[in-house]
Amino acid sequence: MEDATTGSRAEDPPPFFDVHVFICCNRRPDGHPRGSCAARGSEGLRNYMKARVKEAKIPNARVNMAGCLDRCEEGPCMVIYPAGVWYRIESREDVDAVIEQHLIGGGRADGLRLPGGRPA
Amino acid sequence: MEDATTGSRAEDPPPFFDVHVFICCNRRPDGHPRGSCAARGSEGLRNYMKARVKEAKIPNARVNMAGCLDRCEEGPCMVIYPAGVWYRIESREDVDAVIEQHLIGGGRADGLRLPGGRPA
Repeated sequence: MEDATTGSRAEDPPPFFDVHVFICCNRRPDGHPRGSCAARGSEGLRNYMKARVKEAKIPNARVNMAGCLDRCEEGPCMVIYPAGVWYRIESREDVDAVIEQHLIGGGRADGLRLPGGRPA
Repeated sequence: MEDATTGSRAEDPPPFFDVHVFICCNRRPDGHPRGSCAARGSEGLRNYMKARVKEAKIPNARVNMAGCLDRCEEGPCMVIYPAGVWYRIESREDVDAVIEQHLIGGGRADGLRLPGGRPA
């Protein structure tokens, strides 16, 4: 039986990571019209989040850097799988809010969410 | 209401990408005991997969590079979200099998799967 939203199946093995965060660390040249997440500070925010998640001992969570997630204009951006929830994180305070409200609290950091549904 | 496996919720916005592939492109120094996915050719395989997925016009799919996914010994490795299915891809033929059997066929490329459940 297949989950209609995720495509995961009952017979699939258990997840390797329960929470898998990807933060865009793509850097475009200065002056590129789309800008880039790294140019807006995503690398430092990723390092900060990785350290904070480790300190908070959130079980079986991983904070990865990723290449361009194609939401440059909305960045610095991140996506949390398998839930598939996207956030814009502009500061350490935003990272803290995602950790506390989403990863620890099990809710959503609503003021930081990016919309779903890719434009056609 | 929350999906017990993924943590996604009925009120969450629709997914930005229906299929989001992350291929580890981490490179460790030569001789590192864990090896690394890039040292085993993952960067070229990622570029190949990105091009093939585009050619195949698989709707709303994205093939990203990622930092270390912490499965170095099992690499070159990839994970497909939101399903959370992991594969070891050693060649272009392996990439083709994942595209045909998983992304297009909607099944699993069973001979290439990595186990789930992270060792404690």
